[in-house]
Amino acid sequence: MDLKSRIDKAVRDAVRRGQRAPAPAKLAAALEYATTPGGARIRPTILLSVAMACGDDKPAVSNAAAAALELMHCASLVHDDLPCFDDADMRRGKPSVHRAFSEPLAVLAGDSLIMMAFEVLAAAGSHDPMRSAALVMALARKSGMPGGICAGQGWESEDKIDLAAYHRSKTGALFVAATQMGAIAAGQEAEPWTELGDRIGEAFQVADDLRDAVFDEETLGKPAGQDDRHGRPNAVAQLGIEGATQRYHDILSGAIASIPSCPGEAMLAQMVNMQARRLTPSAAASRA
Amino acid sequence: MDLKSRIDKAVRDAVRRGQRAPAPAKLAAALEYATTPGGARIRPTILLSVAMACGDDKPAVSNAAAAALELMHCASLVHDDLPCFDDADMRRGKPSVHRAFSEPLAVLAGDSLIMMAFEVLAAAGSHDPMRSAALVMALARKSGMPGGICAGQGWESEDKIDLAAYHRSKTGALFVAATQMGAIAAGQEAEPWTELGDRIGEAFQVADDLRDAVFDEETLGKPAGQDDRHGRPNAVAQLGIEGATQRYHDILSGAIASIPSCPGEAMLAQMVNMQARRLTPSAAASRA
Repeated sequence: MDLKSRIDKAVRDAVRRGQRAPAPAKLAAALEYATTPGGARIRPTILLSVAMACGDDKPAVSNAAAAALELMHCASLVHDDLPCFDDADMRRGKPSVHRAFSEPLAVLAGDSLIMMAFEVLAAAGSHDPMRSAALVMALARKSGMPGGICAGQGWESEDKIDLAAYHRSKTGALFVAATQMGAIAAGQEAEPWTELGDRIGEAFQVADDLRDAVFDEETLGKPAGQDDRHGRPNAVAQLGIEGATQRYHDILSGAIASIPSCPGEAMLAQMVNMQARRLTPSAAASRA
Repeated sequence: MDLKSRIDKAVRDAVRRGQRAPAPAKLAAALEYATTPGGARIRPTILLSVAMACGDDKPAVSNAAAAALELMHCASLVHDDLPCFDDADMRRGKPSVHRAFSEPLAVLAGDSLIMMAFEVLAAAGSHDPMRSAALVMALARKSGMPGGICAGQGWESEDKIDLAAYHRSKTGALFVAATQMGAIAAGQEAEPWTELGDRIGEAFQVADDLRDAVFDEETLGKPAGQDDRHGRPNAVAQLGIEGATQRYHDILSGAIASIPSCPGEAMLAQMVNMQARRLTPSAAASRA
């Protein structure tokens, strides 16, 4: 099975368990709506790539880790889109969850997907309780306070933003979770994989800034120019489009150089390059 | 250390870890605000009582379970109070989190407390990874979909409510989590403890209905008559005040009868009775 199929199946299976009778029907539908269509599934793809580079000796644990990370990412999108944050009408080319269902159901769908992420990791405890606990720890830390995506979003309520902490937690945290959880799922230490996640997160942030500055809403599948509108800091504002593009490629070189020595090192470098090409504005434009 | 001190310390320690630099200051403050003052801490008190009745052989694991359950409960209160749900201005005698901080910070505080609950359970994995995974599973199931508190709240968005499923998930779920997690934390099977949690949850719901019908806002520390206002089903509307009071005592007798045979069975029955007395309207009135 290719990576995308592994991820989509693991996410779909988790969502179906969450929809079992006697679940309330609208919230059950919102869970599926919030997790489909799959999109690039970039975080769990990185996670599984790292797991495979490390031997992927317990695929059921890796699949659980990938599903949990993607569910957490989907949850964060649902909550970020809420009227009190980005107030986004569209996401992935269709109405955002609170527009398609309601605001209460969007809050609850986000909450439920978070719980589901941890339930999936707990279920992996039947294969390996030590790895299960380490995966819960990594995901919780990179999602909550003081250094996860909640912290990142929280910085936007501060009068004075710590820019480094803001970017590291807002965008970077789930990429670090991806590399750490991939390693843990395959029985390896998480720490040596932190830098790779950090750098991929940085690259992703710059790529996002570039796309946000260059594209219109139809191409993005979500409102364009959001950073400018909300006065959020971004690489294009600091460096211009050419400078930001150069920075993007520099970060990627660093990311590849940081890959720890492991059986699948070369394959993993290739995957990072491939994901990177998908993210650059020129590639996105040619796909559109 | 008495139970309340054990719980408060475990919750406080978790919140402090979540506030570490470089956390955004307002969200960090909101976490503390949402978890203090402690109130009755009734769910983690039940949890620790069950753990002690089962021997409490790993107190660090029990403390983690108690803190996690209370953090989850606090998170649910913060989200339930949001304008799109109960729109409550007051909670525990002070402004609700979204009134004291802001709506974005209330959503994020709730999310962060959920992550923190699972992080605390993951940390208990260093003492016992099997119990850690089982605790994560129990808490996630009783919090999310299809049978946890998210499902309970989700029922309020349905045109036709499954009343049994609604009450079981909305109020009952975290009491079942309390008895199950207490047993798991002490190395016992969760299932025999499900009925006790179910019945305590039912009793709590009826007591809440009674207080909601009988008291004013000052006594409750939150808006009174909420059920009536939101057209939610409750025992007083069905049975009258006297009938509901009788029902309350019947459920409690069943709860005590359901306690599985264990070393601390008698002490646990006493605790259930004590908690029950605190919850009856007459006791609440005499305290006020």
